[in-house]
Amino acid sequence: MAESAVRIYERVLELGAFGADGAGPGRYWRAPFTAAETSAVERVSEWMREGGLTPRRDAIGNLFGRVEGKNSGEKTVAAGSHLDSVRDGGRFDGPLGVVAALEAVGQLLAERGQPLRPVEVVSFTGEEGSRFPLGLLGSRVAAGLAAPETVRGLVDQDGTPLEAAARDVGLDPDDLASVRRDDLACFLEYHIEQGPILERAGLQLGVVETIVGLYHFHATVYGQADHAGTTPLHMRQDALLVAAEIVLALPELVRPSGGVVTVGQVEVLPGSANVVPGEVSFSIDLRHADGQVLSGLVEAIEAEARRLAAARGLRLAWQVTDATSPVPTDAALRARVQRNADRLGFTSRPMVSGAGHDAMAIASVCPVAMIFSPCLAGRSHRPDEHATPEMIAPGFEVLKATLGELAWG
Amino acid sequence: MAESAVRIYERVLELGAFGADGAGPGRYWRAPFTAAETSAVERVSEWMREGGLTPRRDAIGNLFGRVEGKNSGEKTVAAGSHLDSVRDGGRFDGPLGVVAALEAVGQLLAERGQPLRPVEVVSFTGEEGSRFPLGLLGSRVAAGLAAPETVRGLVDQDGTPLEAAARDVGLDPDDLASVRRDDLACFLEYHIEQGPILERAGLQLGVVETIVGLYHFHATVYGQADHAGTTPLHMRQDALLVAAEIVLALPELVRPSGGVVTVGQVEVLPGSANVVPGEVSFSIDLRHADGQVLSGLVEAIEAEARRLAAARGLRLAWQVTDATSPVPTDAALRARVQRNADRLGFTSRPMVSGAGHDAMAIASVCPVAMIFSPCLAGRSHRPDEHATPEMIAPGFEVLKATLGELAWG
Repeated sequence: MAESAVRIYERVLELGAFGADGAGPGRYWRAPFTAAETSAVERVSEWMREGGLTPRRDAIGNLFGRVEGKNSGEKTVAAGSHLDSVRDGGRFDGPLGVVAALEAVGQLLAERGQPLRPVEVVSFTGEEGSRFPLGLLGSRVAAGLAAPETVRGLVDQDGTPLEAAARDVGLDPDDLASVRRDDLACFLEYHIEQGPILERAGLQLGVVETIVGLYHFHATVYGQADHAGTTPLHMRQDALLVAAEIVLALPELVRPSGGVVTVGQVEVLPGSANVVPGEVSFSIDLRHADGQVLSGLVEAIEAEARRLAAARGLRLAWQVTDATSPVPTDAALRARVQRNADRLGFTSRPMVSGAGHDAMAIASVCPVAMIFSPCLAGRSHRPDEHATPEMIAPGFEVLKATLGELAWG
Repeated sequence: MAESAVRIYERVLELGAFGADGAGPGRYWRAPFTAAETSAVERVSEWMREGGLTPRRDAIGNLFGRVEGKNSGEKTVAAGSHLDSVRDGGRFDGPLGVVAALEAVGQLLAERGQPLRPVEVVSFTGEEGSRFPLGLLGSRVAAGLAAPETVRGLVDQDGTPLEAAARDVGLDPDDLASVRRDDLACFLEYHIEQGPILERAGLQLGVVETIVGLYHFHATVYGQADHAGTTPLHMRQDALLVAAEIVLALPELVRPSGGVVTVGQVEVLPGSANVVPGEVSFSIDLRHADGQVLSGLVEAIEAEARRLAAARGLRLAWQVTDATSPVPTDAALRARVQRNADRLGFTSRPMVSGAGHDAMAIASVCPVAMIFSPCLAGRSHRPDEHATPEMIAPGFEVLKATLGELAWG
């Protein structure tokens, strides 16, 4: 048991070398259609072959390691995650789920021979949306949630079209229709929690009930830029004061619901130490697992922001820049995961995933479930993101047991 | 009377063409030791010669238009301001005082012949500190407040040393010692208010009692960058919440004193919409006309900022980046200005200058006074900075009357 977790851990670290050309140890970026991603895909493909799986890459770059089942006409049991990372990200977000699924299927093949149903270990491409401005890229295309024309038209920050980038690594973006999967029986995604809840509670794994719905807003407060020395306080229209009041009001409004809200970007104009802020723009990231509660919060925070701006006589522009609904995992599949966790004697809790995952897209074509492992200090999307073999082992065992039931019966 | 103000107004607009190569009408930047400044200096020098004054440029680029006095051994009566601007600034801040002083001296020469005392119309170079990181550049050197080595060692934002830039426009920065003036009897500076007080009160001019003391601080709140989706609100160390509390607390602390405080620059790190702010830095600009009150505020705002950071368990770094004491104008000279304003029937009030001016530096070598004219909507340091001939006329008349008394007797 410990050996499996150590092997998974070591393989995750090994994959972390691909794309680690940034400054300092572990600072890396593995973006879709880059040499770093290709190297990681090739390494995982080798491991697939060694484990008795047949690797295949589809037109958008998703990687599948397949084992045929004994029964004919059965749908495919799939498990995995993604190999790409955010810029300056960590090594566990994504690769852990791919490597653990591969370890589980390899062990099950060795222990129990050919499965009844076909099994695939999956790595979806471009989950993070860190290069092209569409997250869950590979899983959206596989689920038919992204129109091929839209995907081909994506352009990265350097102006490189997705089509050209994909061709450069040997993919055929003209064939995106073939990526669509309607043959999946279910999809299991094992992932680090990316938050502090499990570690703080001393629990060995989490069983995801819902992936949160998310709203992104872009707000701008318009005041008046005035000379900081010559404009008395009572004659000012300081946009930053309204923005600060909104920043402080947001968590108070959202806290009782159990949701989260974050202002992560702020721009103050003109941005001189000696000029009263005339315009302040900021981002708002709002998440909740319940769609109706989320809708209520969307209304409440906008109303409060408008009230605060009006109270100081300033104008507020408020724009929704992104909106996704909460995605529940499949009740039966989730219950199966929970039973296996209990049976194996692991401590666990049902959880909300506060981050998006490929399982959100795949949920539209088959039942999905997610298993979370704790990670150190809840750190994620940063170079010091980490999970020890001890943290990894329980989630892996539950993944393996569940895959065994689903594919080997 | 109206004719003088119209001529001053038109000359200010004419100078506004130099450096107006930015986007849009009036967007300009006239920095020291640039072609734009040289052109403005040459134009003003021509006007000096036309008016009967002899122009001279010193080693740092200050421009003086001199008229000798009948009495020998008398100190020089000086009046003026500056010709440089902030980036994207307006046309009146500075040039108004130079052009108005020139108009006044020209008219006095025509009306009353040679003065008893020598008179100089002055334009100090680099008042704004918008190119090299030292404001009041020319007046500081003239007052002996800036060591020649320090001045020669200044480097602009593009890496150009002041020495090279000054040589490029024909100045001799090796000769900075010669810039020092110990022959000034007094200095009168006429300037737009750069704030809304006079216009709102419907007053025709302001008589400056004190130029405020100023503190600049750079504060940084250290929290922890966490994933915005997966970190519950109660497990966060959000640096922006503390920064917002400080931003809101500052004006409440300073308001009762009549001073001003401004947070004009804010930087949020890592600055992603989906990451909890781990570090927030911001500038604080604090000004008050009373040195003791100012010292009390300096202590009070730091203490409150530390209290707010500690209340959320976060660390605060707090650094003083600039500190200047209030500078009172000369009581006798100010009283003379006020008497002339009253005698000419203009409505006026004593004022605090919330902005720094060359008169601050020159106050260390001779008595200084300042006259403020209202400006439109208090706007300054922006392209739409404006003052109509009607706004300009009263201040000009008081300047002329006062110069007449001081130099012609």
